[in-house]
Amino acid sequence: MQAYTSLFEILNKAIEEQQTSLNTSSPKEMYEPMNYIIGLGGKRVRPLLTIVGCDIFDANPNEAIHAALAVELFHNFSLIHDDILDNAPLRRGNTTVHEKWNHNIALLSGDGMMVKAFEILGKSNAKHIPELLQLFSKTGLEVCEGQQYDMNFETQDNVSVEHYIHMITYKTAVLLGCSLQMGSICANASLESQKHLYEFGKHVGIAFQILDDVLDVYADDEKFGKQVGGDIISNKKTFMLLDAFELANEEQTKELNHLLFSKEISTTEKVKQVTALYNNLGVKELAIKEANKHTDIALKHLEELKANESKKQHLKEFALHLLNREV
Amino acid sequence: MQAYTSLFEILNKAIEEQQTSLNTSSPKEMYEPMNYIIGLGGKRVRPLLTIVGCDIFDANPNEAIHAALAVELFHNFSLIHDDILDNAPLRRGNTTVHEKWNHNIALLSGDGMMVKAFEILGKSNAKHIPELLQLFSKTGLEVCEGQQYDMNFETQDNVSVEHYIHMITYKTAVLLGCSLQMGSICANASLESQKHLYEFGKHVGIAFQILDDVLDVYADDEKFGKQVGGDIISNKKTFMLLDAFELANEEQTKELNHLLFSKEISTTEKVKQVTALYNNLGVKELAIKEANKHTDIALKHLEELKANESKKQHLKEFALHLLNREV
Repeated sequence: MQAYTSLFEILNKAIEEQQTSLNTSSPKEMYEPMNYIIGLGGKRVRPLLTIVGCDIFDANPNEAIHAALAVELFHNFSLIHDDILDNAPLRRGNTTVHEKWNHNIALLSGDGMMVKAFEILGKSNAKHIPELLQLFSKTGLEVCEGQQYDMNFETQDNVSVEHYIHMITYKTAVLLGCSLQMGSICANASLESQKHLYEFGKHVGIAFQILDDVLDVYADDEKFGKQVGGDIISNKKTFMLLDAFELANEEQTKELNHLLFSKEISTTEKVKQVTALYNNLGVKELAIKEANKHTDIALKHLEELKANESKKQHLKEFALHLLNREV
Repeated sequence: MQAYTSLFEILNKAIEEQQTSLNTSSPKEMYEPMNYIIGLGGKRVRPLLTIVGCDIFDANPNEAIHAALAVELFHNFSLIHDDILDNAPLRRGNTTVHEKWNHNIALLSGDGMMVKAFEILGKSNAKHIPELLQLFSKTGLEVCEGQQYDMNFETQDNVSVEHYIHMITYKTAVLLGCSLQMGSICANASLESQKHLYEFGKHVGIAFQILDDVLDVYADDEKFGKQVGGDIISNKKTFMLLDAFELANEEQTKELNHLLFSKEISTTEKVKQVTALYNNLGVKELAIKEANKHTDIALKHLEELKANESKKQHLKEFALHLLNREV
């Protein structure tokens, strides 16, 4: 995204400075893992959205830099702790913090990173801090709640598509909405404008997550970068699986349950047959339709936003670029 | 403390309301453990100090109630996570959260509780929020750092008495200072007054922790409520042990190392012989002297504080009451 080159420069410089500061902090057992996880990269979508949410009103994007860093630190804290919860060995192709160090260090450096996020937020312009803190803490709680719902789903039988949408909204989407709204708070935007940006980010996040589930099944193996069919193998309750159960007739339900819980079927065969069932039921198309619905809601909010029109266009293109991941 | 009866009433009412709110929040897997750990009680020293820190300037103690709740939630978050780190089965005589539920729930409800602390802090009077957030997040980071230093000590050979004082200052004492200072911020106290209260709380905290170590060895078994000598059995690097190593002659050092690392000696015998060595070296008296030094520093700060004189007297009595635990 060429339009965001200079905003990325501002952001990357701030992240580098933050890393230098973490690098020289004591005790190193607590600060090194923070630096490590930030150093693994990622697309920096959330903090970018925060400075975009400020810049879109033609305010100085530097006004939002502390809020942007806070979002990035919070996101990385959640990655460290989620990897403990999921017992994940890898994150972005690298060893996870609890594997590279140990569980105690991962727990404590995650805690420290979350406090650090609030500390950095507190360096924002004082007049914005009460509003920023309210939004950021409310969202942080929702992210934790979403993670708990996701954990509950693993052992829960009666998960509906609605439950699923609620879960991904909390676990993933609200932080995108919050990122944009925090930027707009730093730009002194009206509450109405703030809300449009929040809803835009939230619905883009929901669409993104649904398409992520679709990719997990239908992505091109080589381009995907992780195992295609991983969600199917682990019986993850995705939009498509929940939808499949809702649409399946008696025989198909029986088959689906057999594929999910039989210990005799190989994982390759399981992925192949569940995918075939998804194709029969048309749940891929339904998932894409659901994602498009949320994309449309998002774009409607962006349309109604009173802000710099060409910058609105850039944000629209950026969102569509994020969502357009060859399915 | 009769002087604090009405302040305790305000506090307990607010904590009860908070518990009712937690009790009705979803997902219950995340909120029930928060309610559980708060329900285990404790002396509520920290949140009381926050409203005392406001009341001492004759301001309305209700001004500080959100800051008080934030401190209590933060403290309880740290208990949940510390119990995971220490693999502790019991907290205040009851099952710890990770034992009663599981590690994942303890991790996530602890996270949620910390975010909740910041959320509640954000309900304070907006004009105080930037100052409160700065102090609270700085202190929160120090508490995490102190916990990491404590963990490091377990495998570290060259721990000095100074390192130890630094560790307990961060792990325990700064939150007491912060509790009082947050109250004084809510009372619009001058920065000078804030600092006196902070230092008072911090040094009381240091004295308290040193005396806690002494109690662990010299307490009356029946009154103590936990196993006397627990620190000796686990080779915990307390003020007295570190002091003993600094004062011991060659022979005594050899004996101490033998007692600590021999696998042939019974725990009863180990406690008895290490205590005898402590008695020979006079480290109990030195620890009490060190604690008294910090108590004196604390009282000097209180003396210099410009506030309601009779309320200063109550705070002094309360602190001495906390510290006066029959050694």
